[in-house]
Amino acid sequence: MSGDRPARLALVPGEPAGVGPELCVRLAQQPRDYSLTAFADPHTLQAAADALGLPLHLRPPGQPSLQPGELALVAVPNRVQPAFGQPDPRNATSVIDALHAAADGCLRGAFDGVVTGPVNKAVINAGGIAYTGTTELLAQQAGREVVMMLANDVVRVALATTHLPLREVADAITSDSLARTLHITHAALVADFGIAAPTLAVLGLNPHAGEAGHLGREELDVIEPVLARLRAEGMRLIGPLPADTAFLPSKLRGFDAVVAMYHDQGLPVLKYSGFERAVNLTLGLPYPRVAVDHGTALELAGKGLADPSSLIAAAQACAQIARLRRTMTP
Amino acid sequence: MSGDRPARLALVPGEPAGVGPELCVRLAQQPRDYSLTAFADPHTLQAAADALGLPLHLRPPGQPSLQPGELALVAVPNRVQPAFGQPDPRNATSVIDALHAAADGCLRGAFDGVVTGPVNKAVINAGGIAYTGTTELLAQQAGREVVMMLANDVVRVALATTHLPLREVADAITSDSLARTLHITHAALVADFGIAAPTLAVLGLNPHAGEAGHLGREELDVIEPVLARLRAEGMRLIGPLPADTAFLPSKLRGFDAVVAMYHDQGLPVLKYSGFERAVNLTLGLPYPRVAVDHGTALELAGKGLADPSSLIAAAQACAQIARLRRTMTP
Repeated sequence: MSGDRPARLALVPGEPAGVGPELCVRLAQQPRDYSLTAFADPHTLQAAADALGLPLHLRPPGQPSLQPGELALVAVPNRVQPAFGQPDPRNATSVIDALHAAADGCLRGAFDGVVTGPVNKAVINAGGIAYTGTTELLAQQAGREVVMMLANDVVRVALATTHLPLREVADAITSDSLARTLHITHAALVADFGIAAPTLAVLGLNPHAGEAGHLGREELDVIEPVLARLRAEGMRLIGPLPADTAFLPSKLRGFDAVVAMYHDQGLPVLKYSGFERAVNLTLGLPYPRVAVDHGTALELAGKGLADPSSLIAAAQACAQIARLRRTMTP
Repeated sequence: MSGDRPARLALVPGEPAGVGPELCVRLAQQPRDYSLTAFADPHTLQAAADALGLPLHLRPPGQPSLQPGELALVAVPNRVQPAFGQPDPRNATSVIDALHAAADGCLRGAFDGVVTGPVNKAVINAGGIAYTGTTELLAQQAGREVVMMLANDVVRVALATTHLPLREVADAITSDSLARTLHITHAALVADFGIAAPTLAVLGLNPHAGEAGHLGREELDVIEPVLARLRAEGMRLIGPLPADTAFLPSKLRGFDAVVAMYHDQGLPVLKYSGFERAVNLTLGLPYPRVAVDHGTALELAGKGLADPSSLIAAAQACAQIARLRRTMTP
């Protein structure tokens, strides 16, 4: 039975001058029941291991690499060897190539999911590559609509819009876009989290969820009609709820996920309640993708001070989803 | 020395059909070192006390009423006696009159501060009175610019905008309005909280605080220049900070307050981290005003189930600020 084979995860460190490579080295030290194949420059990984005084045994791709200290490797050379904390835009191509290659391996079925470290948006753009985020890059490569979800052990938050200026948010929430977000989130809770009949809390766009039209009409004109339609399809949807009280601990216990309308409405409580253990999931891809929930932390790179909890949690979540998808696939 | 006199607090229950009256009765049972004078209908308070089986001794105004079970009373009759859970717009005038009378007592120096219960916006408007909130009502009566601050024992959050539709927020943040918010908040932290040199964290408007202009320009065009100007005046201002990570517990410990640009950016963490103990302060009035941080809870009214923690915390905070203001006034 295929469910017995360990999940094969592709691992992409992200910005080579940040903490990504050393977090991958730390992740490699963990006992695990999934295999890890890094898409990276071997010299960069080795330099990170040396800086931390940790063992690293790089294996050819295709080997299981389940032992602590081992990583299978698909070499994606950097143009220049990075200095800790000093990103070089000449390596932008390598960062993006590694992401594309790992994702391609998943699309071809050679890997069961991809785990990614932090990428520095400005450096990639300075390297001449138009890049708005790894989520968007992977969605485009796969030709899929996706939803960004941040999750820890307290709450899962799916975002109806992600990295938009605040003044563009209201117009970006349309009946179609919101229905897509809800469908993708609902399907992922069933398929990736094994929740047969998930309950989604949907936030309003305006303060107090518009207070019956006194503080904005998007709830009445857009959100409520979409919820009514999807409830008729059988979805369990609560809302639109005022964002300030939807996250009360007593309420969260009744929700499998919260769908926030925008970034700063949904993420502060998630990060407050457990930043270290939080991960960033891309829902809607043909394969699971889980990322760290933090940045490149350039000031910590090479010092052995960066906390690998989020990358470890990301790999565990990715492996768990991969196993569940295989189990549920006939 | 005047600082030895107990603080004289005016108490306004708010919507008479909600939980406000019974919370005032519960507050009256508490041992206290401040006096309480309710601006309310005596029959409404007595009905709430009877429903809860609690003693209530109403005293004429001017008496100290420091004993548990006692309340001094300035009678503000309701037009109709309210039924629990069923607001009657004919009582809108009484609700507003009570607020105006209590505030007037503070402005005349007969009281040292006002504590208010929850008001139902829709019912007041249905009663023919244009009302957007008690904060706004008190500001207008006093002829002052004010700032709304929500606080618990984890974090104080001041809002640069309050009850605005989301699509109006970006244009409402101007250099002048933001500078006013920061000045008022800073002055209140000094005068009302006794913090000699407060540190304020100021959030960005856009996700990731605009990411150097990639996700919106308000940080570069409006917020940063204001911060630079006020820093030159000597204020300790940190930011503009990304909202999702500004509330990490390790960061909050370094801030005396967080200034959020809008309602749903600032309040979810505050409510998640301690809703029951949270209070709503109006900064910038000639007197301290502290309110509960919850609504009228019509479904709980008269059942003895409503938690008085927020009203008790509001009265304690108001008394503490009143004492501090008196101590610091030469």
